[in-house]
Amino acid sequence: MKGVIACRAPGVAVIDLAHGIPPQDVLAGALVLRHAIPFFPEGAVHLAVVDPGVGTSRRAVCIETDTARFVGPDNGVLTLAAPPARIRRAVTLSNERFFLSPRSQTFHGRDVFAPVAAALATGTDPGELGPACTDLALLELPPLDMTGAVVHAQVVYIDRFGNLTTNLMDSPLLDRVAQLRIGDELIPGLSGSYAAVPIGTTLAIVNSWGHLEIAVRNGSARERFAASVGMPVVVELRQ
Amino acid sequence: MKGVIACRAPGVAVIDLAHGIPPQDVLAGALVLRHAIPFFPEGAVHLAVVDPGVGTSRRAVCIETDTARFVGPDNGVLTLAAPPARIRRAVTLSNERFFLSPRSQTFHGRDVFAPVAAALATGTDPGELGPACTDLALLELPPLDMTGAVVHAQVVYIDRFGNLTTNLMDSPLLDRVAQLRIGDELIPGLSGSYAAVPIGTTLAIVNSWGHLEIAVRNGSARERFAASVGMPVVVELRQ
Amino acid sequence: MKGVIACRAPGVAVIDLAHGIPPQDVLAGALVLRHAIPFFPEGAVHLAVVDPGVGTSRRAVCIETDTARFVGPDNGVLTLAAPPARIRRAVTLSNERFFLSPRSQTFHGRDVFAPVAAALATGTDPGELGPACTDLALLELPPLDMTGAVVHAQVVYIDRFGNLTTNLMDSPLLDRVAQLRIGDELIPGLSGSYAAVPIGTTLAIVNSWGHLEIAVRNGSARERFAASVGMPVVVELRQ
Repeated sequence: MKGVIACRAPGVAVIDLAHGIPPQDVLAGALVLRHAIPFFPEGAVHLAVVDPGVGTSRRAVCIETDTARFVGPDNGVLTLAAPPARIRRAVTLSNERFFLSPRSQTFHGRDVFAPVAAALATGTDPGELGPACTDLALLELPPLDMTGAVVHAQVVYIDRFGNLTTNLMDSPLLDRVAQLRIGDELIPGLSGSYAAVPIGTTLAIVNSWGHLEIAVRNGSARERFAASVGMPVVVELRQ
Repeated sequence: MKGVIACRAPGVAVIDLAHGIPPQDVLAGALVLRHAIPFFPEGAVHLAVVDPGVGTSRRAVCIETDTARFVGPDNGVLTLAAPPARIRRAVTLSNERFFLSPRSQTFHGRDVFAPVAAALATGTDPGELGPACTDLALLELPPLDMTGAVVHAQVVYIDRFGNLTTNLMDSPLLDRVAQLRIGDELIPGLSGSYAAVPIGTTLAIVNSWGHLEIAVRNGSARERFAASVGMPVVVELRQ
Repeated sequence: MKGVIACRAPGVAVIDLAHGIPPQDVLAGALVLRHAIPFFPEGAVHLAVVDPGVGTSRRAVCIETDTARFVGPDNGVLTLAAPPARIRRAVTLSNERFFLSPRSQTFHGRDVFAPVAAALATGTDPGELGPACTDLALLELPPLDMTGAVVHAQVVYIDRFGNLTTNLMDSPLLDRVAQLRIGDELIPGLSGSYAAVPIGTTLAIVNSWGHLEIAVRNGSARERFAASVGMPVVVELRQ
């Protein structure tokens, strides 16, 4: 992909965002992208490929917001970063003159998305890439389930430290957390830092994405709880 | 290595191709290089280090083709990308004035190959690096074994998804695949995409290198078959 | 972090040094940094984040030597590369106008260190960042224990090949190594290359950091010895 971009957009800076998204985990890719975008320069072209549907009829798209352009498969990987309310224009990538030829069955990152990103980075208007797309595949975080003062959250992402990111985020609820339950552990409220608890202790913290996270100080919550995406985290609120 | 290049060839763009080649797996490095090169700009300097012989008398070489220059150990890692028919010139790296001094016993990527690549990128002619080398170590894919309409192929590379790349490639034989056997599974012909079979199903596909690949949809063929390089894949052809 | 730098120091080259430091392993980060710095251009800004104390009152610092500037947490990760004898100036990062706002509890790499590094790279004087810091947290390699002609060394770092780097380094003692013991193996002196012993054999070598290293040819010493940092290596010297 970088070779293709170097050929077609020489001198354009390419920044690696992540290479460790778990295979086929569209939600993980979407979350990493969504929380990185605010820190990148306006006008950047963001290319994301988590693409289990490569080679099928799943569409390839370009999405334009007021501040950025996105390129990738139409499977939701782009739409947490570029949600409907912020989309100015979306197009289906159908103009094959921007693709490599021949096109492989397994690597459209190289054959479709990289050359299209290079075209955008060198001034091509999204309108040249194909017709408007008005029915983008959307991705949503799994919804919270609230019962009285109890929030049933779940793990949506696990980082390389084994920290567990949940779907409870950016919410006034985070100011009312009394205690939390995960597996057979009870966590007495939120910590202000990983090091606020003894080494080896499980803690809950609002992380750098603004999400509630379960961690083990100097350890791995993934290992402790044999956790995977979808694991429930129960949050009890103060009234 | 990047520090050395930044010192000796300031402003030259460096592109990371791969950091995950399995230790000592010269064939894996050679394959990744060979299939990436066609997508890079002409004139680029390609540096590859999979170097179990570092510190011995194995030679270090620079190979020039019509479109690129290659630097690395003389163990075959370069010669799938720069096969004999395409070589315009090859030299042994013997002119120590291009090396760092002192030179370590374990990291010629830093001490030899990076400074030589930087010299090439800033205009040094390969002829200055040392004498002509006419007996390069060559690397070949293991040959296919054909018996009538049966091709005995084997796994030559495994990617991070656990997909198994075989040595059957770029061949009219790929148009005649009837069915395939790996481990105790029978695969009924080639798929046109990973998603053409149900989740968890084993499939065969021509991948982005033009090689026959065995994969598991949304899974890992490496894990399913406890596969390693050399594992046999039997391909039955239509007459 | 790269997005923040791209916003605040556009056009400044960013070079990735390492992404695989084990979680919370400050010593590993300090060693990798210390041995990379001599190969980078003078005047570079070096940012290192191994930061288990993020969000606590641990200080953030900038250290200036005659040839480089360093940014990171004040936990020793910088001070093998920038030891006291080479420090020209050190400051505590207290001027919040250089930080992102708001600041997360878990990722000061993004919110503090990246914007400060960008400021330094674009001409900000360290003196603007905060007051002088005269009591930096220092990190030392564990000391060698010598008894007559026996040196009790230990593993301080393990690389991705499973090679074991010890704390015996840059010492005339390395010229007097007679034999070594690790686990239940006896190693008959130093090798001049990994390939100087048969495949699968344990060897000792002075590595590219100038440290004594235990390796297994084409194998993993980490696996063979179930090694971790702190594992003893006994070196017997010639008189």
